[in-house]
Amino acid sequence: MTLTGTTTERVDGRRRRGDDSRRAILREAVNLASVQGLDGLSIGELAERTGGSKSGVVALFGSKLDLQLATIRAARETFIASVVEPTLRAPRGLERLWKLCTTWLEYSRSRTFEGGCFFRAVAAEADSKSGPVHDILVTIDEEWIAFVERCVGLAADDLPALQNPGLLAFELIALMDAANRGSLLHGTARDYELAEAALHDRLLAAGADPELLVATRK
Amino acid sequence: MTLTGTTTERVDGRRRRGDDSRRAILREAVNLASVQGLDGLSIGELAERTGGSKSGVVALFGSKLDLQLATIRAARETFIASVVEPTLRAPRGLERLWKLCTTWLEYSRSRTFEGGCFFRAVAAEADSKSGPVHDILVTIDEEWIAFVERCVGLAADDLPALQNPGLLAFELIALMDAANRGSLLHGTARDYELAEAALHDRLLAAGADPELLVATRK
Repeated sequence: MTLTGTTTERVDGRRRRGDDSRRAILREAVNLASVQGLDGLSIGELAERTGGSKSGVVALFGSKLDLQLATIRAARETFIASVVEPTLRAPRGLERLWKLCTTWLEYSRSRTFEGGCFFRAVAAEADSKSGPVHDILVTIDEEWIAFVERCVGLAADDLPALQNPGLLAFELIALMDAANRGSLLHGTARDYELAEAALHDRLLAAGADPELLVATRK
Repeated sequence: MTLTGTTTERVDGRRRRGDDSRRAILREAVNLASVQGLDGLSIGELAERTGGSKSGVVALFGSKLDLQLATIRAARETFIASVVEPTLRAPRGLERLWKLCTTWLEYSRSRTFEGGCFFRAVAAEADSKSGPVHDILVTIDEEWIAFVERCVGLAADDLPALQNPGLLAFELIALMDAANRGSLLHGTARDYELAEAALHDRLLAAGADPELLVATRK
Protein backbone atom coordinates (compact mmCIF):
# COMPACT_ATOMS: atom_id res chain seq x y z
CA MET A 1 0.00 0.00 0.00
CA THR A 2 2.77 2.42 0.94
CA LEU A 3 4.55 1.64 -2.27
CA THR A 4 1.36 1.96 -4.19
CA GLY A 5 0.67 5.26 -2.44
CA THR A 6 4.13 6.55 -3.19
CA THR A 7 3.88 5.47 -6.81
CA THR A 8 0.53 7.21 -7.11
CA GLU A 9 2.01 10.35 -5.60
CA ARG A 10 4.92 10.18 -8.00
CA VAL A 11 2.58 9.65 -10.94
CA ASP A 12 0.33 12.48 -9.74
CA GLY A 13 3.34 14.78 -9.40
CA ARG A 14 4.54 13.90 -12.85
CA ARG A 15 1.04 14.35 -14.27
CA ARG A 16 0.69 17.74 -12.57
CA ARG A 17 4.03 18.92 -13.91
CA GLY A 18 2.98 17.57 -17.32
CA ASP A 19 -0.30 19.50 -17.14
CA ASP A 20 1.51 22.70 -16.13
CA SER A 21 3.97 22.34 -19.01
CA ARG A 22 1.13 21.56 -21.37
CA ARG A 23 -0.74 24.69 -20.32
CA ALA A 24 2.36 26.87 -20.58
CA ILE A 25 3.13 25.55 -24.04
CA LEU A 26 -0.46 26.00 -25.21
CA ARG A 27 -0.46 29.59 -23.94
CA GLU A 28 2.56 30.30 -26.13
CA ALA A 29 1.10 28.26 -29.00
CA VAL A 30 -2.18 30.18 -29.25
CA ASN A 31 -0.35 33.51 -29.30
CA LEU A 32 2.24 32.28 -31.77
CA ALA A 33 -0.45 30.84 -34.06
CA SER A 34 -2.52 34.03 -33.89
CA VAL A 35 0.49 35.89 -35.32
CA GLN A 36 2.31 33.33 -37.48
CA GLY A 37 -0.53 30.95 -38.25
CA LEU A 38 -1.01 27.28 -37.42
CA ASP A 39 1.51 26.20 -40.04
CA GLY A 40 3.96 28.57 -38.41
CA LEU A 41 3.73 26.68 -35.10
CA SER A 42 7.23 25.38 -34.59
CA ILE A 43 7.93 22.73 -31.96
CA GLY A 44 11.48 24.09 -31.64
CA GLU A 45 10.28 27.65 -31.09
CA LEU A 46 7.71 26.54 -28.52
CA ALA A 47 10.34 24.55 -26.64
CA GLU A 48 12.64 27.58 -26.62
CA ARG A 49 9.93 30.01 -25.49
CA THR A 50 8.85 27.76 -22.63
CA GLY A 51 12.37 26.75 -21.58
CA GLY A 52 11.89 23.08 -22.45
CA SER A 53 13.21 20.68 -25.03
CA LYS A 54 11.81 19.71 -28.43
CA SER A 55 11.47 16.09 -27.28
CA GLY A 56 9.53 17.33 -24.23
CA VAL A 57 7.03 19.13 -26.48
CA VAL A 58 6.73 16.08 -28.71
CA ALA A 59 6.19 13.85 -25.66
CA LEU A 60 3.35 16.10 -24.48
CA PHE A 61 1.64 16.70 -27.82
CA GLY A 62 2.72 14.06 -30.28
CA SER A 63 2.65 15.18 -33.89
CA LYS A 64 2.49 18.75 -35.19
CA LEU A 65 -1.13 18.07 -36.18
CA ASP A 66 -1.98 17.05 -32.59
CA LEU A 67 -0.29 20.24 -31.39
CA GLN A 68 -2.32 22.32 -33.87
CA LEU A 69 -5.58 20.70 -32.74
CA ALA A 70 -4.70 21.16 -29.05
CA THR A 71 -3.87 24.81 -29.79
CA ILE A 72 -7.24 25.36 -31.45
CA ARG A 73 -9.05 23.73 -28.51
CA ALA A 74 -7.11 25.94 -26.07
CA ALA A 75 -8.00 29.05 -28.10
CA ARG A 76 -11.65 27.98 -28.02
CA GLU A 77 -11.50 27.74 -24.20
CA THR A 78 -10.04 31.24 -23.97
CA PHE A 79 -12.68 32.56 -26.38
CA ILE A 80 -15.45 31.03 -24.27
CA ALA A 81 -14.02 32.58 -21.09
CA SER A 82 -13.45 35.98 -22.74
CA VAL A 83 -16.59 36.37 -24.84
CA VAL A 84 -19.24 33.69 -24.31
CA GLU A 85 -19.30 33.58 -20.50
CA PRO A 86 -19.39 37.38 -19.93
CA THR A 87 -22.17 37.57 -22.54
CA LEU A 88 -24.20 34.89 -20.78
CA ARG A 89 -23.90 36.78 -17.49
CA ALA A 90 -25.94 39.67 -18.99
CA PRO A 91 -29.74 39.43 -18.73
CA ARG A 92 -31.37 37.68 -21.70
CA GLY A 93 -32.66 39.88 -24.47
CA LEU A 94 -31.30 43.06 -25.99
CA GLU A 95 -28.89 43.64 -23.10
CA ARG A 96 -27.23 40.29 -23.69
CA LEU A 97 -27.06 40.84 -27.44
CA TRP A 98 -25.42 44.25 -26.98
CA LYS A 99 -23.09 42.77 -24.36
CA LEU A 100 -22.07 40.18 -26.94
CA CYS A 101 -21.13 42.91 -29.41
CA THR A 102 -19.21 45.09 -26.98
CA THR A 103 -17.48 42.12 -25.34
CA TRP A 104 -16.34 40.77 -28.70
CA LEU A 105 -14.96 44.17 -29.70
CA GLU A 106 -13.12 44.36 -26.37
CA TYR A 107 -11.83 40.79 -26.81
CA SER A 108 -10.35 41.84 -30.15
CA ARG A 109 -9.19 45.32 -29.11
CA SER A 110 -7.44 44.14 -25.93
CA ARG A 111 -5.54 41.55 -28.00
CA THR A 112 -6.58 38.58 -25.88
CA PHE A 113 -4.51 36.82 -28.53
CA GLU A 114 -1.46 38.70 -29.79
CA GLY A 115 -2.61 38.56 -33.41
CA GLY A 116 -6.23 39.61 -32.76
CA CYS A 117 -9.09 37.13 -32.96
CA PHE A 118 -7.42 33.69 -33.07
CA PHE A 119 -10.08 32.19 -35.32
CA ARG A 120 -9.89 34.97 -37.89
CA ALA A 121 -6.09 34.84 -37.79
CA VAL A 122 -5.96 31.16 -38.72
CA ALA A 123 -9.04 30.99 -40.98
CA ALA A 124 -7.26 31.85 -44.23
CA GLU A 125 -4.81 28.98 -43.73
CA ALA A 126 -7.50 26.41 -43.26
CA ASP A 127 -10.35 27.46 -45.50
CA SER A 128 -8.93 26.24 -48.80
CA LYS A 129 -7.63 22.98 -47.36
CA SER A 130 -9.32 19.82 -46.09
CA GLY A 131 -8.48 17.78 -43.01
CA PRO A 132 -8.97 17.81 -39.24
CA VAL A 133 -7.74 21.42 -38.76
CA HIS A 134 -10.25 22.64 -41.31
CA ASP A 135 -13.01 20.53 -39.79
CA ILE A 136 -12.55 21.74 -36.21
CA LEU A 137 -12.40 25.38 -37.36
CA VAL A 138 -15.63 24.93 -39.33
CA THR A 139 -17.31 23.38 -36.29
CA ILE A 140 -16.17 26.21 -34.01
CA ASP A 141 -17.38 28.81 -36.52
CA GLU A 142 -20.75 27.06 -36.73
CA GLU A 143 -20.94 27.07 -32.91
CA TRP A 144 -20.20 30.80 -32.91
CA ILE A 145 -22.81 31.61 -35.57
CA ALA A 146 -25.38 29.52 -33.68
CA PHE A 147 -24.53 31.34 -30.44
CA VAL A 148 -24.96 34.77 -32.04
CA GLU A 149 -28.22 33.64 -33.67
CA ARG A 150 -29.48 32.38 -30.31
CA CYS A 151 -28.67 35.73 -28.69
CA VAL A 152 -30.50 37.51 -31.51
CA GLY A 153 -33.46 35.16 -31.11
CA LEU A 154 -33.63 35.80 -27.35
CA ALA A 155 -33.64 39.55 -28.06
CA ALA A 156 -36.49 39.31 -30.56
CA ASP A 157 -39.05 40.73 -28.10
CA ASP A 158 -36.81 43.79 -27.65
CA LEU A 159 -36.41 44.20 -31.42
CA PRO A 160 -39.94 44.82 -32.73
CA ALA A 161 -38.71 45.82 -36.21
CA LEU A 162 -36.51 42.73 -36.61
CA GLN A 163 -37.38 40.96 -39.86
CA ASN A 164 -34.66 38.38 -40.39
CA PRO A 165 -32.75 37.15 -37.31
CA GLY A 166 -30.25 35.14 -39.38
CA LEU A 167 -29.44 38.18 -41.47
CA LEU A 168 -28.94 40.35 -38.37
CA ALA A 169 -26.57 37.74 -36.88
CA PHE A 170 -24.62 37.68 -40.16
CA GLU A 171 -24.36 41.48 -40.13
CA LEU A 172 -23.23 41.67 -36.50
CA ILE A 173 -20.50 39.10 -37.09
CA ALA A 174 -19.43 40.87 -40.30
CA LEU A 175 -19.06 44.21 -38.49
CA MET A 176 -17.14 42.73 -35.54
CA ASP A 177 -14.77 40.93 -37.91
CA ALA A 178 -14.25 44.08 -39.95
CA ALA A 179 -13.13 45.95 -36.82
CA ASN A 180 -10.67 43.19 -35.95
CA ARG A 181 -9.28 42.96 -39.47
CA GLY A 182 -9.01 46.71 -40.03
CA SER A 183 -7.40 47.45 -36.68
CA LEU A 184 -4.80 44.73 -37.21
CA LEU A 185 -3.85 46.00 -40.65
CA HIS A 186 -3.98 49.73 -39.98
CA GLY A 187 -3.07 49.77 -36.30
CA THR A 188 -5.66 52.39 -35.41
CA ALA A 189 -8.80 52.48 -33.26
CA ARG A 190 -10.92 53.91 -36.11
CA ASP A 191 -12.31 50.52 -37.13
CA TYR A 192 -13.58 49.77 -33.60
CA GLU A 193 -15.35 53.11 -33.49
CA LEU A 194 -16.94 52.53 -36.89
CA ALA A 195 -17.95 48.98 -35.97
CA GLU A 196 -19.47 50.02 -32.67
CA ALA A 197 -21.46 52.78 -34.39
CA ALA A 198 -22.61 50.36 -37.09
CA LEU A 199 -23.59 47.64 -34.59
CA HIS A 200 -25.50 50.23 -32.58
CA ASP A 201 -27.29 51.40 -35.76
CA ARG A 202 -28.23 47.82 -36.72
CA LEU A 203 -29.91 47.25 -33.34
CA LEU A 204 -31.66 50.63 -33.44
CA ALA A 205 -32.92 49.83 -36.95
CA ALA A 206 -34.34 46.57 -35.58
CA GLY A 207 -36.31 48.62 -33.07
CA ALA A 208 -34.04 48.55 -30.02
CA ASP A 209 -34.70 50.97 -27.19
CA PRO A 210 -31.72 53.37 -27.29
CA GLU A 211 -31.78 53.61 -23.47
CA LEU A 212 -30.97 49.92 -23.16
CA LEU A 213 -27.98 50.35 -25.46
CA VAL A 214 -26.69 53.49 -23.76
CA ALA A 215 -26.58 51.67 -20.44
CA THR A 216 -23.88 49.24 -21.53
CA ARG A 217 -22.14 51.42 -24.11
CA LYS A 218 -18.71 52.61 -23.09
CA MET B 1 23.67 48.06 -88.58
CA THR B 2 22.65 44.53 -89.52
CA LEU B 3 24.53 43.18 -86.53
CA THR B 4 23.00 45.82 -84.27
CA GLY B 5 19.58 44.98 -85.67
CA THR B 6 20.09 41.29 -85.07
CA THR B 7 21.35 41.91 -81.54
CA THR B 8 18.32 44.07 -80.83
CA GLU B 9 16.05 41.37 -82.20
CA ARG B 10 17.78 38.76 -80.08
CA VAL B 11 17.52 40.96 -77.00
CA ASP B 12 13.85 41.70 -77.76
CA GLY B 13 13.16 38.00 -78.21
CA ARG B 14 14.82 37.17 -74.92
CA ARG B 15 12.98 40.00 -73.16
CA ARG B 16 9.66 38.83 -74.62
CA ARG B 17 10.27 35.26 -73.50
CA GLY B 18 11.31 36.65 -70.09
CA ASP B 19 8.09 38.68 -69.87
CA ASP B 20 6.00 35.63 -70.83
CA SER B 21 7.71 33.49 -68.20
CA ARG B 22 7.31 36.25 -65.64
CA ARG B 23 3.59 36.50 -66.34
CA ALA B 24 3.10 32.72 -66.24
CA ILE B 25 4.94 32.49 -62.94
CA LEU B 26 2.99 35.39 -61.44
CA ARG B 27 -0.30 33.78 -62.51
CA GLU B 28 0.68 30.68 -60.55
CA ALA B 29 2.07 32.75 -57.69
CA VAL B 30 -1.12 34.74 -57.04
CA ASN B 31 -3.21 31.57 -56.97
CA LEU B 32 -0.71 29.73 -54.80
CA ALA B 33 -0.46 32.66 -52.37
CA SER B 34 -4.27 32.99 -52.19
CA VAL B 35 -4.37 29.40 -50.92
CA GLN B 36 -1.07 28.88 -49.08
CA GLY B 37 -0.23 32.46 -48.20
CA LEU B 38 2.71 34.64 -49.19
CA ASP B 39 5.07 32.79 -46.87
CA GLY B 40 3.96 29.60 -48.58
CA LEU B 41 5.23 30.86 -51.95
CA SER B 42 7.96 28.39 -52.83
CA ILE B 43 10.37 29.15 -55.66
CA GLY B 44 10.76 25.40 -56.20
CA GLU B 45 7.02 24.79 -56.45
CA LEU B 46 6.57 27.74 -58.84
CA ALA B 47 9.39 26.43 -61.06
CA GLU B 48 7.77 23.00 -61.11
CA ARG B 49 4.27 24.32 -61.85
CA THR B 50 5.50 26.48 -64.74
CA GLY B 51 7.90 23.89 -66.15
CA GLY B 52 11.00 25.98 -65.44
CA SER B 53 13.98 25.80 -63.14
CA LYS B 54 14.50 27.31 -59.70
CA SER B 55 17.43 29.34 -61.01
CA GLY B 56 15.17 30.64 -63.80
CA VAL B 57 12.61 31.89 -61.23
CA VAL B 58 15.39 33.46 -59.16
CA ALA B 59 16.83 35.15 -62.27
CA LEU B 60 13.43 36.67 -63.07
CA PHE B 61 12.41 37.72 -59.55
CA GLY B 62 15.49 37.86 -57.36
CA SER B 63 14.76 37.24 -53.69
CA LYS B 64 11.66 35.67 -52.20
CA LEU B 65 10.68 39.12 -50.93
CA ASP B 66 10.87 40.53 -54.47
CA LEU B 67 8.72 37.60 -55.64
CA GLN B 68 6.18 38.31 -52.88
CA LEU B 69 6.01 42.00 -53.79
CA ALA B 70 5.66 41.20 -57.52
CA THR B 71 2.89 38.73 -56.66
CA ILE B 72 1.00 41.36 -54.66
CA ARG B 73 1.34 43.86 -57.52
CA ALA B 74 0.06 41.25 -60.00
CA ALA B 75 -2.92 40.48 -57.73
CA ARG B 76 -3.66 44.22 -57.55
CA GLU B 77 -3.72 44.40 -61.38
CA THR B 78 -6.16 41.48 -61.53
CA PHE B 79 -8.32 43.06 -58.84
CA ILE B 80 -8.44 46.35 -60.77
CA ALA B 81 -9.43 44.53 -63.97
CA SER B 82 -12.03 42.33 -62.19
CA VAL B 83 -13.63 44.82 -59.81
CA VAL B 84 -12.53 48.44 -60.25
CA GLU B 85 -12.80 48.76 -64.04
CA PRO B 86 -16.25 47.09 -64.39
CA THR B 87 -17.47 49.31 -61.54
CA LEU B 88 -16.19 52.45 -63.24
CA ARG B 89 -18.03 51.50 -66.45
CA ALA B 90 -21.38 51.84 -64.61
CA PRO B 91 -22.95 55.33 -64.54
CA ARG B 92 -21.90 57.43 -61.54
CA GLY B 93 -24.19 57.39 -58.57
CA LEU B 94 -26.22 54.62 -57.01
CA GLU B 95 -25.89 52.38 -60.05
CA ARG B 96 -22.11 52.45 -59.79
CA LEU B 97 -22.17 51.83 -56.04
CA TRP B 98 -24.46 48.83 -56.47
CA LYS B 99 -22.32 47.61 -59.38
CA LEU B 100 -19.32 47.76 -57.02
CA CYS B 101 -21.08 45.52 -54.50
CA THR B 102 -22.34 42.93 -56.98
CA THR B 103 -19.07 42.89 -58.92
CA TRP B 104 -17.05 42.35 -55.77
CA LEU B 105 -19.31 39.48 -54.70
CA GLU B 106 -18.93 37.94 -58.15
CA TYR B 107 -15.14 38.44 -58.02
CA SER B 108 -15.09 36.47 -54.78
CA ARG B 109 -17.73 33.88 -55.73
CA SER B 110 -16.15 33.07 -59.11
CA ARG B 111 -12.81 32.47 -57.35
CA THR B 112 -10.87 34.90 -59.53
CA PHE B 113 -8.12 33.75 -57.18
CA GLU B 114 -8.26 30.10 -56.11
CA GLY B 115 -8.34 31.00 -52.42
CA GLY B 116 -11.00 33.73 -52.69
CA CYS B 117 -10.10 37.40 -52.38
CA PHE B 118 -6.30 37.54 -52.58
CA PHE B 119 -5.99 40.46 -50.20
CA ARG B 120 -8.12 38.85 -47.50
CA ALA B 121 -6.26 35.57 -47.93
CA VAL B 122 -2.87 37.14 -47.24
CA ALA B 123 -3.95 39.80 -44.72
CA ALA B 124 -3.59 37.65 -41.60
CA GLU B 125 0.03 36.86 -42.47
CA ALA B 126 1.02 40.46 -42.84
CA ASP B 127 -1.01 42.34 -40.29
CA SER B 128 1.00 41.49 -37.21
CA LYS B 129 4.36 41.97 -38.93
CA SER B 130 6.24 44.99 -40.23
CA GLY B 131 8.15 45.35 -43.47
CA PRO B 132 7.58 45.98 -47.18
CA VAL B 133 4.91 43.23 -47.57
CA HIS B 134 2.89 44.74 -44.73
CA ASP B 135 3.35 48.26 -46.11
CA ILE B 136 2.18 47.48 -49.66
CA LEU B 137 -0.87 45.58 -48.33
CA VAL B 138 -1.80 48.54 -46.11
CA THR B 139 -1.46 50.91 -49.07
CA ILE B 140 -3.65 48.70 -51.28
CA ASP B 141 -6.28 48.42 -48.53
CA GLU B 142 -6.27 52.20 -48.13
CA GLU B 143 -6.70 52.57 -51.92
CA TRP B 144 -9.66 50.18 -51.78
CA ILE B 145 -11.34 51.95 -48.84
CA ALA B 146 -10.84 55.30 -50.61
CA PHE B 147 -12.34 53.86 -53.80
CA VAL B 148 -15.43 52.56 -51.99
CA GLU B 149 -15.78 55.88 -50.12
CA ARG B 150 -15.56 57.77 -53.44
CA CYS B 151 -18.28 55.57 -54.95
CA VAL B 152 -20.46 56.21 -51.87
CA GLY B 153 -19.77 59.94 -52.14
CA LEU B 154 -20.76 59.99 -55.83
CA ALA B 155 -24.01 58.19 -54.90
CA ALA B 156 -24.91 60.71 -52.18
CA ASP B 157 -27.56 62.44 -54.33
CA ASP B 158 -29.27 59.06 -54.81
CA LEU B 159 -29.11 58.31 -51.07
CA PRO B 160 -31.17 61.07 -49.41
CA ALA B 161 -31.16 59.33 -46.00
CA LEU B 162 -27.37 58.82 -45.98
CA GLN B 163 -25.93 60.21 -42.76
CA ASN B 164 -22.35 59.00 -42.60
CA PRO B 165 -20.67 58.07 -45.92
CA GLY B 166 -17.54 56.68 -44.21
CA LEU B 167 -19.67 54.43 -42.04
CA LEU B 168 -21.63 53.13 -45.03
CA ALA B 169 -18.37 52.35 -46.86
CA PHE B 170 -17.12 50.47 -43.79
CA GLU B 171 -20.36 48.48 -43.62
CA LEU B 172 -20.34 47.58 -47.32
CA ILE B 173 -16.75 46.33 -47.12
CA ALA B 174 -17.53 44.39 -43.93
CA LEU B 175 -20.46 42.61 -45.59
CA MET B 176 -18.54 41.77 -48.77
CA ASP B 177 -15.64 40.38 -46.72
CA ALA B 178 -18.00 38.33 -44.57
CA ALA B 179 -19.41 36.65 -47.68
CA ASN B 180 -15.92 35.82 -48.91
CA ARG B 181 -14.78 34.50 -45.55
CA GLY B 182 -17.90 32.48 -44.81
CA SER B 183 -18.11 30.90 -48.25
CA LEU B 184 -14.45 29.84 -48.10
CA LEU B 185 -14.84 28.22 -44.70
CA HIS B 186 -18.25 26.63 -45.16
CA GLY B 187 -18.19 26.02 -48.90
CA THR B 188 -21.77 27.13 -49.40
CA ALA B 189 -23.51 29.98 -51.26
CA ARG B 190 -25.48 31.04 -48.17
CA ASP B 191 -23.04 33.78 -47.20
CA TYR B 192 -23.27 35.43 -50.63
CA GLU B 193 -27.05 35.45 -50.42
CA LEU B 194 -26.97 36.94 -46.92
CA ALA B 195 -24.38 39.53 -47.93
CA GLU B 196 -26.30 40.57 -51.03
CA ALA B 197 -29.50 40.94 -48.99
CA ALA B 198 -27.65 42.93 -46.32
CA LEU B 199 -25.92 45.20 -48.87
CA HIS B 200 -29.28 45.79 -50.55
CA ASP B 201 -30.85 46.65 -47.17
CA ARG B 202 -28.05 49.10 -46.34
CA LEU B 203 -28.62 51.03 -49.57
CA LEU B 204 -32.40 50.99 -49.14
CA ALA B 205 -31.97 52.29 -45.57
CA ALA B 206 -29.87 55.14 -46.98
CA GLY B 207 -32.83 56.05 -49.19
CA ALA B 208 -31.96 54.25 -52.43
CA ASP B 209 -34.66 53.87 -55.06
CA PRO B 210 -35.41 50.11 -55.12
CA GLU B 211 -35.99 50.26 -58.88
CA LEU B 212 -32.40 51.27 -59.47
CA LEU B 213 -31.18 48.32 -57.43
CA VAL B 214 -33.51 45.79 -59.04
CA ALA B 215 -32.14 46.74 -62.47
CA THR B 216 -28.68 45.35 -61.76
CA ARG B 217 -29.60 42.69 -59.22
CA LYS B 218 -29.35 39.10 -60.36
